[in-house]
Amino acid sequence: MAEENQDHLIQSEDPQHPANLICTLCAKFYTLGWVTGTGGGTSIRHHDHIYIAPSGVQKELMKPEDMFVMEYESRNYLRRPSVHKPSACTPLFLAAFDKGAGCCIHTHSQWAVLITLLVERDFGKEACFEIEEIEQIKGIPKGRGKQGNLGYYDRLRIPIIENTAHEEDLTESLTKAMESYPDTYAVLVRRHGIYVWGDNVHKAKTQCESLDYIFQLAVRMKELGLPWTKQ
Amino acid sequence: MAEENQDHLIQSEDPQHPANLICTLCAKFYTLGWVTGTGGGTSIRHHDHIYIAPSGVQKELMKPEDMFVMEYESRNYLRRPSVHKPSACTPLFLAAFDKGAGCCIHTHSQWAVLITLLVERDFGKEACFEIEEIEQIKGIPKGRGKQGNLGYYDRLRIPIIENTAHEEDLTESLTKAMESYPDTYAVLVRRHGIYVWGDNVHKAKTQCESLDYIFQLAVRMKELGLPWTKQ
Amino acid sequence: MAEENQDHLIQSEDPQHPANLICTLCAKFYTLGWVTGTGGGTSIRHHDHIYIAPSGVQKELMKPEDMFVMEYESRNYLRRPSVHKPSACTPLFLAAFDKGAGCCIHTHSQWAVLITLLVERDFGKEACFEIEEIEQIKGIPKGRGKQGNLGYYDRLRIPIIENTAHEEDLTESLTKAMESYPDTYAVLVRRHGIYVWGDNVHKAKTQCESLDYIFQLAVRMKELGLPWTKQ
Amino acid sequence: MAEENQDHLIQSEDPQHPANLICTLCAKFYTLGWVTGTGGGTSIRHHDHIYIAPSGVQKELMKPEDMFVMEYESRNYLRRPSVHKPSACTPLFLAAFDKGAGCCIHTHSQWAVLITLLVERDFGKEACFEIEEIEQIKGIPKGRGKQGNLGYYDRLRIPIIENTAHEEDLTESLTKAMESYPDTYAVLVRRHGIYVWGDNVHKAKTQCESLDYIFQLAVRMKELGLPWTKQ
Repeated sequence: MAEENQDHLIQSEDPQHPANLICTLCAKFYTLGWVTGTGGGTSIRHHDHIYIAPSGVQKELMKPEDMFVMEYESRNYLRRPSVHKPSACTPLFLAAFDKGAGCCIHTHSQWAVLITLLVERDFGKEACFEIEEIEQIKGIPKGRGKQGNLGYYDRLRIPIIENTAHEEDLTESLTKAMESYPDTYAVLVRRHGIYVWGDNVHKAKTQCESLDYIFQLAVRMKELGLPWTKQ
Repeated sequence: MAEENQDHLIQSEDPQHPANLICTLCAKFYTLGWVTGTGGGTSIRHHDHIYIAPSGVQKELMKPEDMFVMEYESRNYLRRPSVHKPSACTPLFLAAFDKGAGCCIHTHSQWAVLITLLVERDFGKEACFEIEEIEQIKGIPKGRGKQGNLGYYDRLRIPIIENTAHEEDLTESLTKAMESYPDTYAVLVRRHGIYVWGDNVHKAKTQCESLDYIFQLAVRMKELGLPWTKQ
Repeated sequence: MAEENQDHLIQSEDPQHPANLICTLCAKFYTLGWVTGTGGGTSIRHHDHIYIAPSGVQKELMKPEDMFVMEYESRNYLRRPSVHKPSACTPLFLAAFDKGAGCCIHTHSQWAVLITLLVERDFGKEACFEIEEIEQIKGIPKGRGKQGNLGYYDRLRIPIIENTAHEEDLTESLTKAMESYPDTYAVLVRRHGIYVWGDNVHKAKTQCESLDYIFQLAVRMKELGLPWTKQ
Repeated sequence: MAEENQDHLIQSEDPQHPANLICTLCAKFYTLGWVTGTGGGTSIRHHDHIYIAPSGVQKELMKPEDMFVMEYESRNYLRRPSVHKPSACTPLFLAAFDKGAGCCIHTHSQWAVLITLLVERDFGKEACFEIEEIEQIKGIPKGRGKQGNLGYYDRLRIPIIENTAHEEDLTESLTKAMESYPDTYAVLVRRHGIYVWGDNVHKAKTQCESLDYIFQLAVRMKELGLPWTKQ
């Protein structure tokens, strides 16, 4: 691991620089209730560098100097703040980058957790949240390599994997869910939260918002006895 | 289409200038949950010019230079930022301006969507949300060309049209609903959201707030088993 | 009515000056959902002057120059912005000042409205919301001329009056409720909202917050089947 | 009691100084609905000094000069603002500091109160809220003197004590609950709120957030008929 000072990697006056952007995004996510109590995380791929928010910090108070920077190719840390622990989400973020993502967001949103509690386990394969005919579905792309976003009459499907004792142990089932649902840009984790990724920061963030909107609506629909899909 | 630089149309230090006002309003609407995930939109008529927020952008981060400007008479774009797509809501905004509106707001508010899910379809004509004897109803005008606002004992009626695969295809049914309900300043779109307009920005914004308040209250009333209308 | 310029009444650099304080408070109340869509209002008594937020304005955007100033003794306006209409709440605010209040707040809080929908009408006298054994009750004073606040084992009682077509017509029943419940610092208005007053701005604001907290909790208790009072 | 001016104890340009930090934290807690209407409080131990927010103030508006400072050893006030009353929570905060805490937070969170209403009284001993298999549980430490945080499969247990007429009278039962549940970093108070403490400010704040997240989720689970624990 490079031991010389690598602060130039996180010093920029450009608000769009990944080290700055992760801080701005996480402060916003805090107000949305997605990263309360140091939960959740965010990672951005910037050319050959992966920027990752550290573990166990107050996400709304992060500063660029808190960022970990990893070389994508070698998986070596180029910058590793000694006061912090690297995020246990790192292998999961890397799984998304391996699928071509430019940004990956992990939230503990209560709406996501409630959805995983409302969809029963399907032994032998991933459970799946399904909903259709909600305009906001149009905020989700059809799938990697496909043109455009889902249509109003398309069914949105988000696989749900079972939680594990240690976050890094989710990597295998996350990867498996990505293979079973090659078009998905998100995987729900039961009793835990969600991983959402996108081609770039803009897409990951707005897809995460659209999904959270849909989950919140779906929970309220359930409370009012309204079905998520046409029979 | 005019190809010369038309940036003077969106450059002003006046916070009340439409190009600035759309940005301020959309940032506020984001915190209200109305335009999450690039959903929703806002348009202002300013003399012969129509200012329109672009499609697919993070609404809370918009800047005046993101604005489209259309000439009302000719329906030609005077300013069309090449990095953005024009809003699919444009024909719906124009339908409101044709009725004399000065501002039109489109939200994906979950309360609006839930109301459309709680009111059954009425084949052959528009379904309609109805409520009465709620003080906030007094925030809604009686109708175009009529003096003053609805009274406490008046019944508020907001028509609901069916959603379509493509937003622009809503124009016909929106226009039809405007004709069936000539006094309405809003049309709900099932499983989608709402269009609200007003004589000016102030009215469109405060009417949109009053309606959203009423929808939220009505959903909670439904959860508590309280009826929306007498008998 | 004094026609000369009276702007000195509303010009002060002191954030505690009533003309400034009403703006700060209303901006905060907007984020709490109390004064959405121009609803609600606030008034402060400052020696012989009554400061009143105008009718029909966006409450979160008010400026000191929007304020009406009335002479308490004569009930004459000393300052009356020509662009605004005086608040229809004015006679109700005055009724509170006549009882010794220093500040009166009117909100359209949905929690207050839902409480009025959950308490049945009691013909011949005011209906009454009652709750006990909630710590936050200790935020409400025992009554005018009495020492200290309610205790944990005291029962909080807030009378509910019926709404009228015109806000000013509430004055008689509000005054009557103040007489029937001489210890109350608040009156709920059915399907409308609440009037809360206090000896000074600090007390009116914090009592209004404590009541809104209690109403919100009480609605959730009702949804969960939990009783408001011991048998 | 020291009567000379002790303002140097609360004057610092360092945002991490306890007198500044209590103000920042309480402003944040206000937006979370934890300290509405002057409810709740926060205290930080800084070497031999205990900093305590005063009673009866608007918690979001506090300034360093509002702070009480007590000498931990002697329990004497070193600084006691004459315009304020000391917090009735003081003996409860001290009980937490006696257990080694560096910061103690008291909130009136509605989610905490609702949890205490949903868990039945257990005569002869403390009642107890229990939940398991929720990822956010990992935000809570295993217990004082133990390494690390709870695991996903561990059961979180938070004791619930009965409320008393006077806050200071909770001290005995709080201390008793701390003895019955030596691993707990929080005690719920029925129909009142919660006390949460931690080794330092960071831990107390993030543990308080994690617990509030879990309580909110648990209330929603109850509304949806979902159990908190296996079988």
